Amino acid sequence: MMLSDSDLDRLFAEDVPYGDLTTQALGIGARPGRMVFRARAAMVAAATEDAARLIARAGGQVSQVVPSGTLAAPGEVLLTADGSAAALLASWKVAQTLVEAASGIASGARALVDAARAVNPAIVVACTRKAFPGTRAVAVKAIVAGGAVPHRLGLSETILVFPEHCVFLGEESLDSALSRLRALSPEKKVVVEVKDAQGAIAAAQAGADVVQLEKFAPDAVAEVVACLARLAPQVKVAAAGGVNAGNAATYADAGAHVLVSTAPYLAPPKDVAVAIEAVGAIDAAE
Amino acid sequence: MMLSDSDLDRLFAEDVPYGDLTTQALGIGARPGRMVFRARAAMVAAATEDAARLIARAGGQVSQVVPSGTLAAPGEVLLTADGSAAALLASWKVAQTLVEAASGIASGARALVDAARAVNPAIVVACTRKAFPGTRAVAVKAIVAGGAVPHRLGLSETILVFPEHCVFLGEESLDSALSRLRALSPEKKVVVEVKDAQGAIAAAQAGADVVQLEKFAPDAVAEVVACLARLAPQVKVAAAGGVNAGNAATYADAGAHVLVSTAPYLAPPKDVAVAIEAVGAIDAAE
Amino acid sequence: MMLSDSDLDRLFAEDVPYGDLTTQALGIGARPGRMVFRARAAMVAAATEDAARLIARAGGQVSQVVPSGTLAAPGEVLLTADGSAAALLASWKVAQTLVEAASGIASGARALVDAARAVNPAIVVACTRKAFPGTRAVAVKAIVAGGAVPHRLGLSETILVFPEHCVFLGEESLDSALSRLRALSPEKKVVVEVKDAQGAIAAAQAGADVVQLEKFAPDAVAEVVACLARLAPQVKVAAAGGVNAGNAATYADAGAHVLVSTAPYLAPPKDVAVAIEAVGAIDAAE
Amino acid sequence: MMLSDSDLDRLFAEDVPYGDLTTQALGIGARPGRMVFRARAAMVAAATEDAARLIARAGGQVSQVVPSGTLAAPGEVLLTADGSAAALLASWKVAQTLVEAASGIASGARALVDAARAVNPAIVVACTRKAFPGTRAVAVKAIVAGGAVPHRLGLSETILVFPEHCVFLGEESLDSALSRLRALSPEKKVVVEVKDAQGAIAAAQAGADVVQLEKFAPDAVAEVVACLARLAPQVKVAAAGGVNAGNAATYADAGAHVLVSTAPYLAPPKDVAVAIEAVGAIDAAE
Amino acid sequence: MMLSDSDLDRLFAEDVPYGDLTTQALGIGARPGRMVFRARAAMVAAATEDAARLIARAGGQVSQVVPSGTLAAPGEVLLTADGSAAALLASWKVAQTLVEAASGIASGARALVDAARAVNPAIVVACTRKAFPGTRAVAVKAIVAGGAVPHRLGLSETILVFPEHCVFLGEESLDSALSRLRALSPEKKVVVEVKDAQGAIAAAQAGADVVQLEKFAPDAVAEVVACLARLAPQVKVAAAGGVNAGNAATYADAGAHVLVSTAPYLAPPKDVAVAIEAVGAIDAAE
Amino acid sequence: MMLSDSDLDRLFAEDVPYGDLTTQALGIGARPGRMVFRARAAMVAAATEDAARLIARAGGQVSQVVPSGTLAAPGEVLLTADGSAAALLASWKVAQTLVEAASGIASGARALVDAARAVNPAIVVACTRKAFPGTRAVAVKAIVAGGAVPHRLGLSETILVFPEHCVFLGEESLDSALSRLRALSPEKKVVVEVKDAQGAIAAAQAGADVVQLEKFAPDAVAEVVACLARLAPQVKVAAAGGVNAGNAATYADAGAHVLVSTAPYLAPPKDVAVAIEAVGAIDAAE
Repeated sequence: MMLSDSDLDRLFAEDVPYGDLTTQALGIGARPGRMVFRARAAMVAAATEDAARLIARAGGQVSQVVPSGTLAAPGEVLLTADGSAAALLASWKVAQTLVEAASGIASGARALVDAARAVNPAIVVACTRKAFPGTRAVAVKAIVAGGAVPHRLGLSETILVFPEHCVFLGEESLDSALSRLRALSPEKKVVVEVKDAQGAIAAAQAGADVVQLEKFAPDAVAEVVACLARLAPQVKVAAAGGVNAGNAATYADAGAHVLVSTAPYLAPPKDVAVAIEAVGAIDAAE
Repeated sequence: MMLSDSDLDRLFAEDVPYGDLTTQALGIGARPGRMVFRARAAMVAAATEDAARLIARAGGQVSQVVPSGTLAAPGEVLLTADGSAAALLASWKVAQTLVEAASGIASGARALVDAARAVNPAIVVACTRKAFPGTRAVAVKAIVAGGAVPHRLGLSETILVFPEHCVFLGEESLDSALSRLRALSPEKKVVVEVKDAQGAIAAAQAGADVVQLEKFAPDAVAEVVACLARLAPQVKVAAAGGVNAGNAATYADAGAHVLVSTAPYLAPPKDVAVAIEAVGAIDAAE
Repeated sequence: MMLSDSDLDRLFAEDVPYGDLTTQALGIGARPGRMVFRARAAMVAAATEDAARLIARAGGQVSQVVPSGTLAAPGEVLLTADGSAAALLASWKVAQTLVEAASGIASGARALVDAARAVNPAIVVACTRKAFPGTRAVAVKAIVAGGAVPHRLGLSETILVFPEHCVFLGEESLDSALSRLRALSPEKKVVVEVKDAQGAIAAAQAGADVVQLEKFAPDAVAEVVACLARLAPQVKVAAAGGVNAGNAATYADAGAHVLVSTAPYLAPPKDVAVAIEAVGAIDAAE
Repeated sequence: MMLSDSDLDRLFAEDVPYGDLTTQALGIGARPGRMVFRARAAMVAAATEDAARLIARAGGQVSQVVPSGTLAAPGEVLLTADGSAAALLASWKVAQTLVEAASGIASGARALVDAARAVNPAIVVACTRKAFPGTRAVAVKAIVAGGAVPHRLGLSETILVFPEHCVFLGEESLDSALSRLRALSPEKKVVVEVKDAQGAIAAAQAGADVVQLEKFAPDAVAEVVACLARLAPQVKVAAAGGVNAGNAATYADAGAHVLVSTAPYLAPPKDVAVAIEAVGAIDAAE
Repeated sequence: MMLSDSDLDRLFAEDVPYGDLTTQALGIGARPGRMVFRARAAMVAAATEDAARLIARAGGQVSQVVPSGTLAAPGEVLLTADGSAAALLASWKVAQTLVEAASGIASGARALVDAARAVNPAIVVACTRKAFPGTRAVAVKAIVAGGAVPHRLGLSETILVFPEHCVFLGEESLDSALSRLRALSPEKKVVVEVKDAQGAIAAAQAGADVVQLEKFAPDAVAEVVACLARLAPQVKVAAAGGVNAGNAATYADAGAHVLVSTAPYLAPPKDVAVAIEAVGAIDAAE
Repeated sequence: MMLSDSDLDRLFAEDVPYGDLTTQALGIGARPGRMVFRARAAMVAAATEDAARLIARAGGQVSQVVPSGTLAAPGEVLLTADGSAAALLASWKVAQTLVEAASGIASGARALVDAARAVNPAIVVACTRKAFPGTRAVAVKAIVAGGAVPHRLGLSETILVFPEHCVFLGEESLDSALSRLRALSPEKKVVVEVKDAQGAIAAAQAGADVVQLEKFAPDAVAEVVACLARLAPQVKVAAAGGVNAGNAATYADAGAHVLVSTAPYLAPPKDVAVAIEAVGAIDAAE
């Protein structure tokens, strides 16, 4: 799973369309240097391979890089690159910002997964598609690096019935609609979002494979889980809406099989310390 | 300032590459409906025009939309659209997520600006280029909607000397380097990032137009401001690194002329309530 | 579900990058005309909306177009457009070829669906992702217009275990691997491709939701269906490899729940007759 | 002649936007393997170089590949690659489908060329631009690999007068129009599509360099050829519409100088057998 | 013939990626205005339609525009648009620069065509593909607007034998090579570039349809024309290399049938005067 | 500073979308050769690195290339590449045209810079954004190679007040408007374009950092410089409009601190002589 070349082109185009003006004006571009990325605090590193490709595209040589998913200790080296000042200074921030943002998401996902699995090692954390618009490739790579899975990559590939779909059903019952969906989509699970326990039970009895409880308190989740354990034990219960690392254990304890969360996308970036140094003597005259 | 058509294409491609499978499987796509976006809490709306364009591309008709920069009250309507269920359900989340993310940034910028201007109405809040990689068009539009300005759009257009540039200067003094920069770039201001008060004063005396104080405590900012008021009154002082809405007043009070901040990009999205309803009777047989 | 603007740009760029040279050389571009697309034989029309958009981009006005999925009788009008000779002659073939190709696929899918449903009205026809590389948007739209569904849109969204995955499992048993997959992907069905009946039963017993029988004769399908009806009645059986409109009834009769086919992508285009006529008198001198 | 990097990006984006979910879920991505492509039946291989580039982009190392245009015997190795399971399983189908589709076209072109040249070794087979929309780069490469040439790459570069152009000529005679075209385009041949023998003779006498006989029976082609041999021996006769490998010999025998055909684009893909195996021992714990 | 939407996107992206900062900073964006483009001197206007589309994309309403190819008198209005100051000021220069550049080329082509046709009304002026890299769409549209034709749009569509091809022929004679080319490409003319009269005659006798005389003085052209009129009257003579409006009459007088020139691409832009005015009263408070 | 991969893709796509037809038809593509680029006259070479990348993308091996900015003597080798005839002949002209165009601009910039600096070694030459639309990446790289700097990369990053902005100010004075701009943009210089000396003085007194004198004669520039030296010595004077290598010395002598010019973009391409030769014996039979 890696960013496409055209994605990398876009990142450069937005940040350094015509090189680093300051480097050019100073006339220092040809001088050799070394750049080292280090984790400032503990973090799950992500998109490091893509950062390395960014630096290489700018002309740097990356001699070492830790893979996405690495749990890095404070001070641990993530990436080392050599090259001209022009190459290093042009790719520095775009690479750093990418790793920081992706590692923030990965670390956020990891924290949520760890909190939930401390209670239930079999629980699954699935992240929504509500990442910042235009960032899905980075976001998905990051949550996977953190131990979560994508809830759905987009609208075109999974069956997820929202109440907003149901308003267009007219007289048709949910039972009938879900029957049709199951018949038409034998290779997909049918997920139904519900707003209350009654809705959850109705959906399960109508044939949902997964009921997605939207903004249920943990207690209410536990109630649905208990009820379905009797009525429809094959149905999975997903808790969604407001789930985060702080309450994940409680939701796990409530018996949810899946936690659906947007929270990792909102985790703050993880600081990466970048050290750039000149290598060898610098000629006075250039 | 608006997203390009190809940006909108990309947003659709990442979220609904082949339409909404659930709508298709339910066979409800042709039924007419209405979709209304409302601010859930007070917010500075942003990217609303682009959301309207997304809905229009999917086939909806947008009858009303508030412009970016609008301070919306809780419950205020941001956008109203009519169209087929297929059009509305395909564009719903991609448009909603865009407005939520952009309005989060705009509101974050606004809060920072308001906090700083309560102390110094003339202060300028400039946001860094450390938005999530690949989102600069949305991010810049959003911070402008919130009353901030871009610190710099990228590396190619402004002169900002980092210590990382200076390591490549070798024996050359900062005075000499800044002289060269000023001579070569008479149409640009020369900004120099410094790590301590001594560095700030040296940079100012060497001819910097703006000294950017990186991670200075407010006290230390005040000290530099006082010092430069005597020594180099034409030099602007920018406080950067860790500045946010919570401490903006303090930094403003310290006399900084510019606050440079990444914080608005990290503001949580602003919730937008979306109501979708069917319009007219739904035929049983379709 | 519609082609993106950039997809339409690409189609024009490949066929008429600089307009129709013959029209230009003849100097007839400004003369008004009308263009009518008609089904030459019975067909399921597809991508007609996109053809209309192509014509509109070239400057034509489309006054009528039948929607994708329409079963058109021989001679039935699919689309009518007015405009300058330049607009009509530039968009003619690119629009015609698109409708012909997409309608070929749609009609091929329809034929397969109809043949299978004549035996089992509840059977589902799912088309593979082996459409011509680079054509997925058109191909998916076309098979949906023909009553089929996508088997999977790509590798990133569904769990489908090929024997080629299993070679990397080493000592691990299929049971163990499928247990892990089910635990990790509670929102997805687990599909397993198998090469013989034994493999099918093993996969079903190991927890597959769907067993995909690769190149089984109908008899062999029937045997698996019968066996699983006893041993694992919740498991769906998909017949794949060599399934087409000619043998679909036999596979349906064998009890497969899903037919997985590439055949519709290989259906020949459906001929569209295009009539272009001048409108009004043509001035001798232009 | 090779696909652009952005074309390859598009192929990956449509098939494996976020990697192979199954490989990820199984956790086998890092295990080393080897992948070998072999021709299942005799075929003209095409787009093999591009398949190799796809595999390399996914991280595989291609150690051997036969060039486009190679006549491969059944079982012959087309391509060998080593790499991680993740690299091989992500690029497998997209590379295989590309080679199968392109080799199908190349082999179809070859068959048509061979059939025609058995009768007339000097005959030229030119393929139309009616390949599947959006696939021209692959299609042109494939027909060239099969020994055919492009009839025209698009509308912008050749002079081909259709009856649909003539309807806009008003009172102007074909003689006059062709005179104008010849005068304006001295570096191009003027091709005229005709529907009957009379039209062919008229076009030849009006100055066409090539008359393109649309849907003529072979007899009718022979008649035109004989007639023009006397009247306008410098004019080339192209037979178009319905020409395929089955009737190419007959059309060649009728004396056509050029066969214009869409048939190769509709040739079925040529099966490529792909063998993937693990290399070395697999650690139980990973 | 018009620029694609993605071409227009690119033009905006390079000039106004985030709107006009000055307009934003002044806070005048919402004020209504009118913008009028006028020819400063006589010119052949070109790309005016595309300029209008650029203005419309920025939000302006274009009420009038002259078509490409119009011979505009000094002061003549080319385009009128109304809209907000933001729309007009963002699109002003990108639209103006496009029209100026394209009209410069069109006017340059026109001058060359007019000079040549004053001597020989039947002569054809063909422009090379040596326009500025990346500008072919604009360049081709402009030379056509000026009455010239493209010599060749690129390498893939025409047969033009350079001496640089011949160095790879080894022992093979030009006669043999041209025979092969003519046999393989019956729908194309074979053009051969030659460096001296002997070469021209050899190429004509070897079967070239067009001999392209590279950097021949007019006298030398006349000599070749005279010679070929006797030896190979069907062969067209193209004069290339250094042909421009200043010497076109001389080359035409020398009897060349085609003038091949790069000169129009190097013509200076044609100045367009742009007048922008505010419309209606401007509120003091906004 | 280098062209993006997608820029290079675009250059190939416009010139050689499907390879060199002539090479293919001649069947000489596999024969090995060498290609050498030489400066025909003295020139500042530019975009040579990008030309090398183009050749490499086509399959050639570049063994030597001079960097952008090199002052090449007549006959000096710029670039040497080896490869198949197909690789060399496909990339030849697109690479040559790029170097010629970019070197023309670079040499034009150099000439202007040299002329101005002969009078005032500290003067800065800034090139406008009026390069040919769509060519900014090449144009900026070229003028920097020639010793100039970009005046502004686009509208979004600098404050430049045109009279066309002022018409929307209504009753507001320039003093007031510039005050607002300076307050809002402390990190930017404020540039004001003026049409006469009075305007220049007014702008300087209103707080402009730079006054840009539009189409002033050198005398008038000198007058403004003298006046501002007394009244506002910190204000820089930029002469714009009609400045070129021919009059640069005069403008420098008049005391302008910055010369703003479009002229280098209009400099004619610098001829590059390309020699292509076959390497080794050519087999008769291939």
